[in-house]
Amino acid sequence: MSSNSFGNIFRVTTFGETHGPAMGCVIDGCPSGIKINEKEINEALRRRAPGLNPWTSPRKEPDQVKILSGVFEGVSTGMPICLLIENRDADPSKYTPIKNLLRPGHANFTFLHKYGIFDYRGGGRSSARETVARVAAGAIASKILREMGVEVRAYLKQVGGVGPKFLSDVPLRSRIDASPIFAPEQEKEMRAVIDQAKQEGDSLGGVVEAIALNVPIGWGDPVYEKIEANLAKAMLSIPASKGFEIGEGFEAARMRGSSHNDEFMATSDGPKPVSNHAGGTLGGISTGEPICFRVAFKPTSSIQKVQQTSDLENRPQEFRLPEGSRHDPCLAIRAVPVVEAMTVLTLVDAYLLSLSSQQMPALEPDLVR
Amino acid sequence: MSSNSFGNIFRVTTFGETHGPAMGCVIDGCPSGIKINEKEINEALRRRAPGLNPWTSPRKEPDQVKILSGVFEGVSTGMPICLLIENRDADPSKYTPIKNLLRPGHANFTFLHKYGIFDYRGGGRSSARETVARVAAGAIASKILREMGVEVRAYLKQVGGVGPKFLSDVPLRSRIDASPIFAPEQEKEMRAVIDQAKQEGDSLGGVVEAIALNVPIGWGDPVYEKIEANLAKAMLSIPASKGFEIGEGFEAARMRGSSHNDEFMATSDGPKPVSNHAGGTLGGISTGEPICFRVAFKPTSSIQKVQQTSDLENRPQEFRLPEGSRHDPCLAIRAVPVVEAMTVLTLVDAYLLSLSSQQMPALEPDLVR
Amino acid sequence: MSSNSFGNIFRVTTFGETHGPAMGCVIDGCPSGIKINEKEINEALRRRAPGLNPWTSPRKEPDQVKILSGVFEGVSTGMPICLLIENRDADPSKYTPIKNLLRPGHANFTFLHKYGIFDYRGGGRSSARETVARVAAGAIASKILREMGVEVRAYLKQVGGVGPKFLSDVPLRSRIDASPIFAPEQEKEMRAVIDQAKQEGDSLGGVVEAIALNVPIGWGDPVYEKIEANLAKAMLSIPASKGFEIGEGFEAARMRGSSHNDEFMATSDGPKPVSNHAGGTLGGISTGEPICFRVAFKPTSSIQKVQQTSDLENRPQEFRLPEGSRHDPCLAIRAVPVVEAMTVLTLVDAYLLSLSSQQMPALEPDLVR
Amino acid sequence: MSSNSFGNIFRVTTFGETHGPAMGCVIDGCPSGIKINEKEINEALRRRAPGLNPWTSPRKEPDQVKILSGVFEGVSTGMPICLLIENRDADPSKYTPIKNLLRPGHANFTFLHKYGIFDYRGGGRSSARETVARVAAGAIASKILREMGVEVRAYLKQVGGVGPKFLSDVPLRSRIDASPIFAPEQEKEMRAVIDQAKQEGDSLGGVVEAIALNVPIGWGDPVYEKIEANLAKAMLSIPASKGFEIGEGFEAARMRGSSHNDEFMATSDGPKPVSNHAGGTLGGISTGEPICFRVAFKPTSSIQKVQQTSDLENRPQEFRLPEGSRHDPCLAIRAVPVVEAMTVLTLVDAYLLSLSSQQMPALEPDLVR
Repeated sequence: MSSNSFGNIFRVTTFGETHGPAMGCVIDGCPSGIKINEKEINEALRRRAPGLNPWTSPRKEPDQVKILSGVFEGVSTGMPICLLIENRDADPSKYTPIKNLLRPGHANFTFLHKYGIFDYRGGGRSSARETVARVAAGAIASKILREMGVEVRAYLKQVGGVGPKFLSDVPLRSRIDASPIFAPEQEKEMRAVIDQAKQEGDSLGGVVEAIALNVPIGWGDPVYEKIEANLAKAMLSIPASKGFEIGEGFEAARMRGSSHNDEFMATSDGPKPVSNHAGGTLGGISTGEPICFRVAFKPTSSIQKVQQTSDLENRPQEFRLPEGSRHDPCLAIRAVPVVEAMTVLTLVDAYLLSLSSQQMPALEPDLVR
Repeated sequence: MSSNSFGNIFRVTTFGETHGPAMGCVIDGCPSGIKINEKEINEALRRRAPGLNPWTSPRKEPDQVKILSGVFEGVSTGMPICLLIENRDADPSKYTPIKNLLRPGHANFTFLHKYGIFDYRGGGRSSARETVARVAAGAIASKILREMGVEVRAYLKQVGGVGPKFLSDVPLRSRIDASPIFAPEQEKEMRAVIDQAKQEGDSLGGVVEAIALNVPIGWGDPVYEKIEANLAKAMLSIPASKGFEIGEGFEAARMRGSSHNDEFMATSDGPKPVSNHAGGTLGGISTGEPICFRVAFKPTSSIQKVQQTSDLENRPQEFRLPEGSRHDPCLAIRAVPVVEAMTVLTLVDAYLLSLSSQQMPALEPDLVR
Repeated sequence: MSSNSFGNIFRVTTFGETHGPAMGCVIDGCPSGIKINEKEINEALRRRAPGLNPWTSPRKEPDQVKILSGVFEGVSTGMPICLLIENRDADPSKYTPIKNLLRPGHANFTFLHKYGIFDYRGGGRSSARETVARVAAGAIASKILREMGVEVRAYLKQVGGVGPKFLSDVPLRSRIDASPIFAPEQEKEMRAVIDQAKQEGDSLGGVVEAIALNVPIGWGDPVYEKIEANLAKAMLSIPASKGFEIGEGFEAARMRGSSHNDEFMATSDGPKPVSNHAGGTLGGISTGEPICFRVAFKPTSSIQKVQQTSDLENRPQEFRLPEGSRHDPCLAIRAVPVVEAMTVLTLVDAYLLSLSSQQMPALEPDLVR
Repeated sequence: MSSNSFGNIFRVTTFGETHGPAMGCVIDGCPSGIKINEKEINEALRRRAPGLNPWTSPRKEPDQVKILSGVFEGVSTGMPICLLIENRDADPSKYTPIKNLLRPGHANFTFLHKYGIFDYRGGGRSSARETVARVAAGAIASKILREMGVEVRAYLKQVGGVGPKFLSDVPLRSRIDASPIFAPEQEKEMRAVIDQAKQEGDSLGGVVEAIALNVPIGWGDPVYEKIEANLAKAMLSIPASKGFEIGEGFEAARMRGSSHNDEFMATSDGPKPVSNHAGGTLGGISTGEPICFRVAFKPTSSIQKVQQTSDLENRPQEFRLPEGSRHDPCLAIRAVPVVEAMTVLTLVDAYLLSLSSQQMPALEPDLVR
């Protein structure tokens, strides 16, 4: 039932398993006339690529995209765009020793029950590798947003409880990218706790924050398609995510209306909110203020420590990661570009949908009543 | 773009404005053969009805449902079920004094920009009144779940920061309903802070927790239709909600893999997780353990205190609630049955979808590989 | 699974059984700013109302619509519009004598097998009465099309094999409406054959033709959402329809390319086709020429003649229509406004979808390559 | 807007242009446990491959499929299945001479207006080459149907007006495949008229008939998702199709109810229709009788004869097909396996949807009322 598709107008369908021949996606509904080239997509992929520094998985994937359709002479034609990224460093044979074991924190237990199939090689579709296709699609969507002046920035805010509660300012993109862990503030402290967890054969959770700047008023829809509802779904679809909050989020549950409400003010651009406790939306529709939210990620399930488990014959067993298996000590780091991509995909869909909800241009302009 | 529909197979479309003639919904895709009567739906509506105690809005709505279609001799026929609930206590004339003013924390600002229409009467579609249709639809969906042995319980966990961090046990339904604010523990303390905020003309936020018991293994789908992704969307679609977390949620971001991972254990019913930090899902699919999550609600935007705002002509104004306008001091209380309804709707859709994803019955049973 | 919804952006969900309390629909995705009033909808309903002349069913239904939501001060707000039409002349007791019998040509046989329910009262959801909601929704959609200058005209072309092969001209709306059977040409001959079939207790099939004028170039989408594919689906969803053809239709299968191809010609408005064998579309997208198609309707299944059948206990029985049951001698007549409504609904959805497929306005205009 | 996807549960998304690097599709929602191998898909592709005989296009495409995902050890896993078919014999340079010309009967005119892009190389997404992905997906869907005992057979019935009105019997698959033009009867006469048209540099239209055997009672849904409505949409989505009719089709419009109605008869398997004028459906739901329908195809637009047209600068020009361009003299021939594939895709989706509409198994069995 299309559980591999995201979006309504700008609709992305992803495919591929971490130990199969390739990952990829088909983008249907990309408007025509967008300049697209493989080089720009590859740059986006490089941001989430593993093997670049000690704080991410050592798996080596060059992640070069091939555009198979939908682009003619460097411009989108309105036809479906198929993007293909080959898996180079897949090595399913490593998984033979654990062929028979349930992996704590992994989805092969539920997949076995749902589908009657036990694919023991890495995480299959549940692997974080699947997100490479999201980032590729996001690279195209972000070209449309950039035409609108909209910019999305995600960054690592906290790791294992370490990190700033509030950032001193909206971080510059250059500052985020200057950090190998995408942390604009308290980066050194975060790296230290990751190093320590790694040394102990353990892993850490983290919080990613994202901010969308210059979103015009009016994106998102009331009731079930609120922009924050679609962002929440987008974020909870990322492997290992466990929570989403927008604006004050869970802190709002501790507040009073008199301090949480954003009052309005007359300005030279018309009435505007004077504060942004709401996080950029009212009634599910963007207010013109920055859309700001946070996503919680659990610690990586694959750890070096021995864990208790059962085999498929229901016998108690010890679980040890196969020799040479490669994992991120803190998934939240590489989740940063994925959060960014899913935000971009959610926003571009909201933008394209908004084109048909506005009142008819032919009607009289003064409909305010 | 169908922003008023929820669900894929069991699909609910709601309609109606808080100050219009009626609220209602159409349920499409309800299987045939379900016993349905108006009395049971009315009982569910009574749980969210306003005017029942000092901690909710004094608006009086008897909320009696009429079934207009889809039920024949007390049983669902498989045809669309239209449910209608008349608005009795609507009084739009109260809103005339604020006809021209933006309301802090309300959606008429964004609706005006998106639709070119300023409906000053109450919250229109953004009013919490819209949720009456969700609860009515949930009452039907819960009949299907009950046949499967699945039960959903939601309750008020915290108000304005007051309330237990962990409940001593899964609360009994009778205990939840014994409290006028749906709080199984520390109810007295919560009532006290609500009373105080109300006296001061202010409002409070809160946290609602929900638990789904006996969900079989295998509901929910990988990647973009994870059961937690759909729950997150469902919850963030409820008016005033600002956050969602499942299992350990944001706490998971502070944890290490060795303490967060749920190990597996051989049992007489086959392998099972020994703990439930995950909150009942792995890879987006239910594990058979209780599905447990929390939703953050902001404080009610309508407060008695004077607030600064702008009128539609972009002139600074003071905003005062119209005399006799009626509001909840803490929306989280009446959100409890809504959280329950949206959970039920999400689960029943996941259940019906799961019927087509399983392997073909005609094939050999032993497909585990 | 939403089998009662039509359209993607402008999405109509209908409900109601012919012998239940009411028929109705919810329209989601209607843009804001459209002037809507009950009077105009009632006028549209009057065109398909039964009991107006000897050539349609004598059932008396005043068919007055109530707008329950989505319209404020006579203008659409962008919120879901619920339309309700009460059933006044329903009399299920008439059906008691055939409570146990399968009706030849009717759907209660298949409904019984699919849903395990035998609703013997009239046709339930399969009754042509369901189409009243389509016509009501179409009346709103046509207001949007009219703003674009688009006009749809349907008319009765043939009955029982009688009628013109080609019309002498595109018929004026006034001429169509001057005929009680919506037949602009050879109306007298058609009425004669209907009279005769009726006298003999029999019924007749017929062909309805529709033409959409002034559709701009560019509505409809390639591959699976071709405008003719969606029209075909729309038409085959009308009760009793058995065929659809566009342009030359089945005649095209007898032709050669050299006579079927529409050549292009340079004109003062740019290149245009010189003929319209295609029927107004190329590659699933409108060409700017009139969209012209035909729909075949089978003869009404309910006839006065005795027929052989089986009862639910699998015993042979004779089937006689209950005394006083009321039916159209030729369903194709009252199908005319339904064909028109479904055409309008298909076109308005294609129009709203087309708003997001065009290239970005911000890009350079000259993208022709 | 997902105009490149077909189906709800078993959802196929196709991509690729006739002169791009590859064609392909992603199948989402294929149940787990289906045996799938490339060899079987290749056999299906071979039936629609060009270049096999004088009556089809001389373009040479080996059409070997690669399965990129969703199949593990020869069995579907429930994950999305990506199928890739490389284009080998694409030669866009041939199209340089007509770079500037509108092609009569082709879609580049409408694509230019809709998307602002003029892709002069072959038909792009509108080329019949796109259907290779439909046939590949159909090969997988047909494995599911075969488990249910359902078989679909399509064949060429008429070409340019030549061919039997009624077949003497349901043709055996072997007899269809014994004919290079898939014509089980009057094949010689059809080949003669095709040969003649080809010699004269012209092309022919044709009619394809399909029959689905052993479809159980209860597939398809009422109102807008009638099985014939979805078949009509599927067929009209095939390039060059202009009409669809089921059962008696347009002939029904000439009939009386007393001769068109299928009476019911008590049989040892329960009540059944004694005839099948309806073509296997009642109320949009399958009756258990063969589903039988016809599709009209226009003559191939690409002909050797000179035609009048305009160039992009709106100047009159003569249109001549480029030297060495390769086309089918009668598209209806190669449409036969495509009609079959689209039928299979429509039926498998109806089957999977039907699993959730039936009454709850836990309820009492005797719900007939």
